[in-house]
Amino acid sequence: MSIKIGILGYGNLGRGVECAIKQNPDMELVAVFTRRDPSNVSILTESATVCNISDVANWKDKIDVMILCGGSATDLPVQTPEMAKMFNVIDSFDTHAKIPEHYANVDAAAKESGKVGIISVGWDPGMFSLNRMYANAILPQGKDYTFWGKGVSQGHSDAIRRIDGVKDAKQYTIPVDEALASVRAGENPELTTRQKHTRECFVVLEEGADAAKVEEAIKTMPNYFADYDTTVHFISEEELKANHSGIPHGGFVIRSGKTGWNEENTHIIEYSLKLDSNPEFTSSVIVAYARAAYKLAAEGAKGCKTVFDIAPAYLSAVSGDELRAHLL
Amino acid sequence: MSIKIGILGYGNLGRGVECAIKQNPDMELVAVFTRRDPSNVSILTESATVCNISDVANWKDKIDVMILCGGSATDLPVQTPEMAKMFNVIDSFDTHAKIPEHYANVDAAAKESGKVGIISVGWDPGMFSLNRMYANAILPQGKDYTFWGKGVSQGHSDAIRRIDGVKDAKQYTIPVDEALASVRAGENPELTTRQKHTRECFVVLEEGADAAKVEEAIKTMPNYFADYDTTVHFISEEELKANHSGIPHGGFVIRSGKTGWNEENTHIIEYSLKLDSNPEFTSSVIVAYARAAYKLAAEGAKGCKTVFDIAPAYLSAVSGDELRAHLL
Repeated sequence: MSIKIGILGYGNLGRGVECAIKQNPDMELVAVFTRRDPSNVSILTESATVCNISDVANWKDKIDVMILCGGSATDLPVQTPEMAKMFNVIDSFDTHAKIPEHYANVDAAAKESGKVGIISVGWDPGMFSLNRMYANAILPQGKDYTFWGKGVSQGHSDAIRRIDGVKDAKQYTIPVDEALASVRAGENPELTTRQKHTRECFVVLEEGADAAKVEEAIKTMPNYFADYDTTVHFISEEELKANHSGIPHGGFVIRSGKTGWNEENTHIIEYSLKLDSNPEFTSSVIVAYARAAYKLAAEGAKGCKTVFDIAPAYLSAVSGDELRAHLL
Repeated sequence: MSIKIGILGYGNLGRGVECAIKQNPDMELVAVFTRRDPSNVSILTESATVCNISDVANWKDKIDVMILCGGSATDLPVQTPEMAKMFNVIDSFDTHAKIPEHYANVDAAAKESGKVGIISVGWDPGMFSLNRMYANAILPQGKDYTFWGKGVSQGHSDAIRRIDGVKDAKQYTIPVDEALASVRAGENPELTTRQKHTRECFVVLEEGADAAKVEEAIKTMPNYFADYDTTVHFISEEELKANHSGIPHGGFVIRSGKTGWNEENTHIIEYSLKLDSNPEFTSSVIVAYARAAYKLAAEGAKGCKTVFDIAPAYLSAVSGDELRAHLL
């Protein structure tokens, strides 16, 4: 008896979830739901069905956990509470400032339906949040640092693409080595935005565009680039495709803290990720938490949860006895 | 109303717990229990009492969580189940092979008394175990690596001290840089014991002892040194005191795993610790889990738990709302 999974939304994240399910023999992808015409969506899993989102209610008793793979801006705030009326749900909602509101909406819907909803799962929010929380609880006297990268920022790449004269672009966020070294040395530096990350842009120009003007437009763009040291490289479309078509990412969560009667000892806790594919890693985290949603629901839990509320053993396919014997 | 803590055993770990409690305003150390004559034990916390272990039953209703700070070889296998008859308990039992047996004993005692017992808390077992487990659940196709150090191994230092002609000694376990680099590069190397760690020894000789003989005895000692590249430095007692009296430690837990339909993408998850004081960091982890023991007991939980069984939020003094708003 495997855990029956549905996917809502078949973009990079949905495909990542599909791949992750294949690696977990206790799970089975039963259906993918899309807003598109299902006959135009081809998936990798032969045994699964592609359905239009309008059919979703028919699957109420055939899916144990629905994984929502839409975007945080407009899809998830509506879809997650809506789906929680029928299914145990899990999403990767990542608009940090709106998490309390999203939590309340999903909690109300899931409590009413008697289902479990897990929100904001992935690596940030997700594994990075967990590591911030554990490290804060362990070292109450200390300071947190989160660095992102080296990795592709979709939002920043999109911002460059909207500039006149730009045909295509990829933007990498890169942590500054000196800042990382200072944090790791326990120096507890106060770091400005500019001191923490640099931004590197690979830009393909439209025929006849003015490179200097585009570079200026990027480097002075408020919020996105103005507060950073930004490097702009103009390259050909072929080069962009050949060398910058991946979606790598990663980063570092570091807490530096003091212990001892007079706080005389320093400790550094560091968690880092180096990811070839941002959406596939996010999907892998989501699928592990989908198992937790299934187990929690089977125990009668209901309402909204986050990674903070879920005991680690729920993520594992392995029994408590085995975990204690081999991983503790 | 603060959480009332008792400490059983006042060595390095007990003192570390005392210091950690000072950093957590929701906790209060009420008593330290010792096998020694209490009048000969002086502690740092003015408001706490030092008692002989024989008085412990009188404190049954005055302590919320008893923290056991004895050794894993002979103290904890007896003390933790015994104390679980009267108190919520927590220990740092670290004999990996005997964890299932210890778990069963503590579980039986705690279930009978209606108390919570948390065993094997610290960094390994403890935070390292958690990170192994999370990473395994997220990346089922992969390989785990744990490196220890650079840090002082008490067991290896003791083994050197037992050699004829040795007055004092400190042994450092050091991860091999090339092995770490290969793991981080996702190369999934098969590493022998010798390829993972080196051992560096600082030895003070007795007057007239034969240095060459001592070095030979160290380097060929089975289990402890024979399987490693070992360096021996002979130094003066003053130099040992001046440069090697700390108890630093740390290490790395790394999982390298693959995702994608054809496992075409590689991901590296790394958790590392760099600790000035091994016992103080272990104590800080224990104290965070003592808060969890208190909260779990207040909810009516009973029986034995490990770090795998406890939702992260239980470790924090901060509310769920605040955690979601600021750390997620």
